[in-house]
This record gives sequence, C-alpha cells and structure tokens, in this order.
Amino acid sequence: MDPSEREVADNRALLTDLYELTMAAAYFAAGMTAPATFSFFVRAYPKDRGYLVAAGQEDVLRHLETFRFSRDALRYLRRSAMYHADFLDYLEQLRFSGDVWGLPEGSLCFVPEPLIEVTAPIIEAQIVETYVINQLNLQTLIATKAARCVHAARGRDLVDFSLRRTHGTDAGMKVARASYLAGFAGSSNVLAEKHYGIPAFGTMAHSYVESFDDEIDAFRAFARLFPTNSTLLVDTYDTLSGVRKAAEVAKEMAARGQQLSGVRLDSGDLLALSQGARAILDAAGLPAVRIFASGGLNEYKVAELVERGAPIDAFGIGTDMGVSGDAPWLDCAYKLVEYAGLPRLKLSPAKQTLVGRKQVWRGVGADGQMIGDVLALRDEAGAVMAAQLGVGLDQVQPRLVPVMRAGRRLDPLPGLDAIRARCRAELAALPEAHQALRQPAAYPVRVSVELESRQTAATAAVRARLAR
Amino acid sequence: MDPSEREVADNRALLTDLYELTMAAAYFAAGMTAPATFSFFVRAYPKDRGYLVAAGQEDVLRHLETFRFSRDALRYLRRSAMYHADFLDYLEQLRFSGDVWGLPEGSLCFVPEPLIEVTAPIIEAQIVETYVINQLNLQTLIATKAARCVHAARGRDLVDFSLRRTHGTDAGMKVARASYLAGFAGSSNVLAEKHYGIPAFGTMAHSYVESFDDEIDAFRAFARLFPTNSTLLVDTYDTLSGVRKAAEVAKEMAARGQQLSGVRLDSGDLLALSQGARAILDAAGLPAVRIFASGGLNEYKVAELVERGAPIDAFGIGTDMGVSGDAPWLDCAYKLVEYAGLPRLKLSPAKQTLVGRKQVWRGVGADGQMIGDVLALRDEAGAVMAAQLGVGLDQVQPRLVPVMRAGRRLDPLPGLDAIRARCRAELAALPEAHQALRQPAAYPVRVSVELESRQTAATAAVRARLAR
Repeated sequence: MDPSEREVADNRALLTDLYELTMAAAYFAAGMTAPATFSFFVRAYPKDRGYLVAAGQEDVLRHLETFRFSRDALRYLRRSAMYHADFLDYLEQLRFSGDVWGLPEGSLCFVPEPLIEVTAPIIEAQIVETYVINQLNLQTLIATKAARCVHAARGRDLVDFSLRRTHGTDAGMKVARASYLAGFAGSSNVLAEKHYGIPAFGTMAHSYVESFDDEIDAFRAFARLFPTNSTLLVDTYDTLSGVRKAAEVAKEMAARGQQLSGVRLDSGDLLALSQGARAILDAAGLPAVRIFASGGLNEYKVAELVERGAPIDAFGIGTDMGVSGDAPWLDCAYKLVEYAGLPRLKLSPAKQTLVGRKQVWRGVGADGQMIGDVLALRDEAGAVMAAQLGVGLDQVQPRLVPVMRAGRRLDPLPGLDAIRARCRAELAALPEAHQALRQPAAYPVRVSVELESRQTAATAAVRARLAR
Repeated sequence: MDPSEREVADNRALLTDLYELTMAAAYFAAGMTAPATFSFFVRAYPKDRGYLVAAGQEDVLRHLETFRFSRDALRYLRRSAMYHADFLDYLEQLRFSGDVWGLPEGSLCFVPEPLIEVTAPIIEAQIVETYVINQLNLQTLIATKAARCVHAARGRDLVDFSLRRTHGTDAGMKVARASYLAGFAGSSNVLAEKHYGIPAFGTMAHSYVESFDDEIDAFRAFARLFPTNSTLLVDTYDTLSGVRKAAEVAKEMAARGQQLSGVRLDSGDLLALSQGARAILDAAGLPAVRIFASGGLNEYKVAELVERGAPIDAFGIGTDMGVSGDAPWLDCAYKLVEYAGLPRLKLSPAKQTLVGRKQVWRGVGADGQMIGDVLALRDEAGAVMAAQLGVGLDQVQPRLVPVMRAGRRLDPLPGLDAIRARCRAELAALPEAHQALRQPAAYPVRVSVELESRQTAATAAVRARLAR
C-alpha cells in the first residue's frame, strides 16, 4: 500500500466527509444549481485569545483551483452502489468555477469576521467544505498561538521545534509555515526549508553527546565540523559543568579564529541556569556566545523568563506551540449564508450565523492604531462604516479582497516573507491591551445597521415559514 | 509550487529536524558506525489516562523499509555549504539496515514500556527519530483517546467525525485509522475508506436543509435518493418539529416498502431531545428508526448520556477525539539506550531513561485478566518474570516481538481488522479500574531486578566518568 501522503496528494477531492458527496448527489438529483455563498468564520475565541492571525488561504486556493476527481477516485466511487451513474459522470467533469473573497494571510481577524467567503454553484461551494475548514482551522490556530509566543519573546528569536509532536506530517509542514509567518525566525523542519524557504535551525541531541565517552569530545568533534555554526547542548549530565566544557571548546575555536555560536539549555531551572551560564561565558571572555533555551516552553513560560530578565537570546518552542496545547482547535465553521439570492440561516440554539455576503471594515486612529471593526454586507459604503465608527472616511479600510474569480486566482500568491511582514505590521497596529497573554481586552467588532436589519428580517422569515 | 503532501510523499527523509542531519554528519566525520539502540516510550500518562493503545507502527516500518534520500533531496542538500561532499555521497547510498522490535499495533501499553526499539548503525537509528516520534505520538495518542470513547459508549456505535478539525490532512487519515482500530465503527472520511477500507458514514449538513424552502422537502429529496440509507438531520430550525417531519417522511417511505435509517441530533440538550425524539418516533410506530447524536461530544459527555439512559443508538465524535482535546500530545521520547555495546543515559533532572535493550512481560491471572507487567532486559528469562509477578510460567507472556531484521520486515503487516480485534481483546482483559475515565487505578509495571541493577551500574559509571 502506498503511504497515505501520496494518496492524499493524488486524491485530495476524496479527503472529505461523506456527507459532502451525499448532499452533492441530492442537489444534483434535485437540479439545484443556483449559486450559494458559504462563509468561513470563528464563532468564539479560544481561552485567552483576543485576536486571530489568518492563515491557510494559500492551500485553500490551490485546492479550489486544482479541484477534480481523479480517474482512480472515480473508479473507487463507481464501485459503490450509492451513486447514480449520471451523478458520477457529472463529478468526472466537476471543476471549481466560483468566486472567493478572502482576508489576506497574515492579517489579524476578530470573531466573528469571515476569513473567506466562497460563492459558487451550490455543489461546488459545498463539496470543498471539509478541506477548507481542515486547513484554515489548523493554520489560523497555529499562527495565532505562534504570534502569542512572538509577543512574549519581546524581540528575542524563536525557532519552531515541534515537528516530532505535530499531529502528523501535514501539520509538521503547516506549523513550520504558520509559525514563520507569525514571526518565528525559522524551524527545525528541513523539508519546510526546502519547500517554503523557511530557515532551518538545529544542532545536536542528548544521544549525540551520550554516544561519545566524554562530553567535551562530542563538543570538539561538532565544533570542528561546523566551525561557523555550532550550538552545543550542555545539559546531558550537569548543565553548568557542560557550559564550562563548552567555554573551553569556544576558547580552542577562538585560537583557530573561529566563533562558537552558542550553548543550548534544555532542562532544569532555565532562569538560574541561563544566569549561571552567562556568568561562566562572560568570565571566560566569551560575551558573543549566545544562550539558547528549549524544553517544554510556551508563551507563558517565555514571558516569565523574559520578564525576570533571563539572559536568553533565543528560544526553541516545541510541542505546546505545534499543537496549540492550551486550545488545540478553533470553534470555526463554514456556513451557508445565501442561496439562490436569499439569505439562509439555521436557528439551532447558540449557533446562529450572520446571513449574506460580507465585508469587514477596519477603523484606524490618527496614530495608526486599530480602534475597531464593522462587519457589514459586502456592498455597503465606507462612509457608512466611518460614521458608525466615528472616524473620517480615510480612517476605514475594507479587509476582504477578491482573490478568485470563475475558479481562477486573480493575483499571484504573495510570498511567505510578504505575508510575514503583513502580520508584523498588523500586530504593531493592534493596541497592547488586546495582545495580553491572559484575559486580553475585547477588540470591538460591531455589526452594521444594514446587516443587523437583514439578519432580523431573515430570522423572521424563517420563523414565519416554520409557523405555516 | 506543488502541494506539500506531494513534497512529503516524495522527500519524506527530509521531513526531519535539522539536528538529525548535523549529528549524522558528525558521526560520519568521526567514523562512528557502531550499532546503537533507541527506545521509543512514553514518560508519563496524560491526565486521566491509565493505559495507552499502541498505534503507528505500520507507518514507521514502511518509512524504515523505504528510507532514502531522493535525487531531488540530495540536490537540495548539495546546495547548502553545510555538508561535505563525501557525507552527501554517503547519504545517497544510505538505507535502513537495522533491526526493530515492537509491540504489535492495537496492544495495550503502560508507562514507561517501549513501543518500539530500533537497533542499527548509529546514523541510521538516529536519522529516523523525528518521523518515528511524529507518527507514534499521534497515532497512539488518538487510539488511546478513541478507546476511552468506546469504553464510555458501552456498546453503542461510534463514528469519527473529526476530519475538518484534525490538524491537517495526514492527521485526518491517521485519526480515522487510529479510532477505527480502537473500536469505532467507521469515519466520515471518504479517503480513509478508499485507502484503509474503513466504513464511511455521513448524511447531510444544515446547509443542505437550509437550501430548500421547506425542511420536509429537503428530507423527502434525500430519502428518495438514498432509500436504503438515510439519516435525517433534524435540528436546523426546531429539533422536535424536525423529528415530526422526519417521522412523516419515514411513514411515506414505509408506504413504499422502505425504511428510514435514523435521525441525527446535533445541538441542544441531547438527553431531553433524544427522549423526545424517541417518544415521537415510537408513537408514530417507528421503533426501528435509530437516533444518532453529535455535536461537541467526547468520552465524558458520551458516558454521561449513556449513564442517564439517553435513547441514543450511535454517536458521532468529532473535534475533541480528533485532536485529543484534553491532552493533545504524549510526553514521549526516542532515546539512545545503548551504543557500541555499552548502556547510555543522560542525567538531566526528571528525565532519566532506562538503559539497554528491553522486553516487556505481562502477567495474566487465572481468569485471563491482566495483573501487572515487568519491564526487563531483552534476554532475561520468563521464569524470572513469573517469579517476580508471583505467577506460573504459563501466566507470563513477552510482548515485544521482532518485526524487522536487517531492514526487512519479518512478517506481512497485519490487516486493520486484526489489529482492531487485538485491541478489543486486550481491553477486555484489562480490569475496569484501569479503564475509569477519571483517575484510573495505576496499572502495576515493575522493573526487573536485573534491569534495576544494570541501571544503577550505568548511572554510577557515568557519574564516575564525570568526576574524573
């Protein structure tokens, strides 16, 4: 049997909940071909989050643009008695021909604003649901978690060390990408460097040190091989004695005109050990040797170390970032908001969806700081939004942009560094209070008067229909 | 740019932490080719877990057996100034030639027993670390979470609904597999059916119901198309009124000689609504119409519904199972335990590893129930274990078996249904107290006298070397 990654690459159209196919069959049988708009949004923030970093659009657009059932997939579906032959013939021809509006990757997004809206004949818009949610959930979740780590580090470098604990191989790639776009310096993941151009970092494990009879021999062998880029792992046996050996090797390197990059602490009391290590290195005349810390870190622990003045230059952040340990999913949905020109919604308790195609308007103060958003219908005027926010017309901007028309991307995908720069700029414009790691202040998102009244009317119409 | 799944499929050897490559380069430069044994184990149970279900070995063995750097991967590595040409020539030829012992998938495993042990020339055993952990962590994590759901359901059917919230596409596939092997009836994931043969389940979303002007028209269209397998989603507007419409459609179907399969409740108070739905269906003479419940479920909620007697026949379990929401990673490691014939270990606080190649012996009482394990060196005799457990020789079994020799699998991989049967049988032999969903009783795992004394000696030897 092929590995499952190849199966996914070859037959991604089948990486879907079965109900997407049964619904498609029902729409097809009923001759329902009118355009539908689906909106992807987050219903509620995870614990302690006050903003989201939008990510995952690139994979979604690539999926839509290349959507098709392979010959192999169709052969598989034809073996089932569930589908009529004419429906399968239809699937064979099916391509995504719709329009997409989206929030550019790296943008800040607030509950319950849409990250993307898809308008297409209902089968096409529906059938991509599972993959759209799968990718936007993961990548936005991780970019948000990573941005919190970046905030906590206050300018120190962060490296993604999570590949071994990410949920599988796809997450390993996407976590490297999402954390980099949120401001990490790079990742331990070599394939992410090859595929995305994300700088790869890494040095040695404890097993390397243990495989030598003496710790210092392990350090010397490594330093000789990588004279321009060696970070020595010093906590295999006793951290500060490891630092002293690293200092000895650093001095041997200096005599050869080389510079030891750093030492890595991976266990114990990182505050005390980093202070002890810094003292040893400074006393040895090695102020340029950096201290790198890792081991069970997350934004809370990094913030504490930084606040307490730990002399740590860079952090490796692994598991807790790579799985978003304190909040491993987003309460997100891809919901029908319009079909055949009419607003649609469900009335299930606590899960109401705002109807219609939308736009998000952002208000920015004179100092460039964000002051609040308005969630509006897509065709509303900026002047109305400015009035609702109480600012000038030049202080509001629409956030969703058309990214795909008739199944084709409108612009080339932005490069990852451009996405990263956007994220950095937006975070710089978000007041600190909303970036607090615990209990952040709520960022104001208003609903436009027009959308509010459209929602009220649509709810009343559904209730009236039910009462018939 | 190709989608990343194809990149992973083509270049999985590069899906690794950079330090695996730098360490390999250092071992190569130092001429270190002696065999090393690495042991994969879990250091501590996640919250409220009293056992683990081993899973992921199939992907690990496939990775080892097919391990190689593609031409594309080598071209990429050669562009870097980091590696010497002779090391890259070595990588070009590199295959995995080692031996592997493992706990069969679907087996129960207890902290800190190894799930697999890899013995190979140190570069080969080291370089596969990242992928080994990545897959065993995810699949064991999810199989364990899923087994808890199965326990909570007390014989009711469970279906994996998590694909949209799993962390990416690989997790989507592996969660379907891991939950099925732990006893789920199937998954919503269509590609998992194609790839693994796991039964696919699914019917309709709220958007389907909303896209019709009347709920009952949506139900009728669906029932006409899928007369042998229709489950109608009844909570789009008002759950019990939805159930009444479903009953009407069921009676229309009965008049045509057809049987409505079920109704699905996806929100609200599932206990009260399932009782209300059952009453409506029974009053309509439809006792065979099943009730399916979903929406934010996990083992705790399922257990509560079952204990309170909710007339629910099957549950769809999504996000919380698919990301193991209350414990989204295992504290697991792949550690060097022996190199060049000598035990190896690190002394980092709270992270000591048991040295040497190992075997796990399980003691079983006269009633067939498990009574405790002994973690021993691989070549110890069963009689010693039986004595340590205080049972007869016929009541102890070795658990780790050789699965690969000189880079080749010894036996064909077991089928998924055989793995599933093994898991069911082992869970049946594990006393209830260890399966409690909260604060389970600790299952006894002893360390053999021989391993204990080997560990003491190895620790003393390391300390003596450090004191020199």
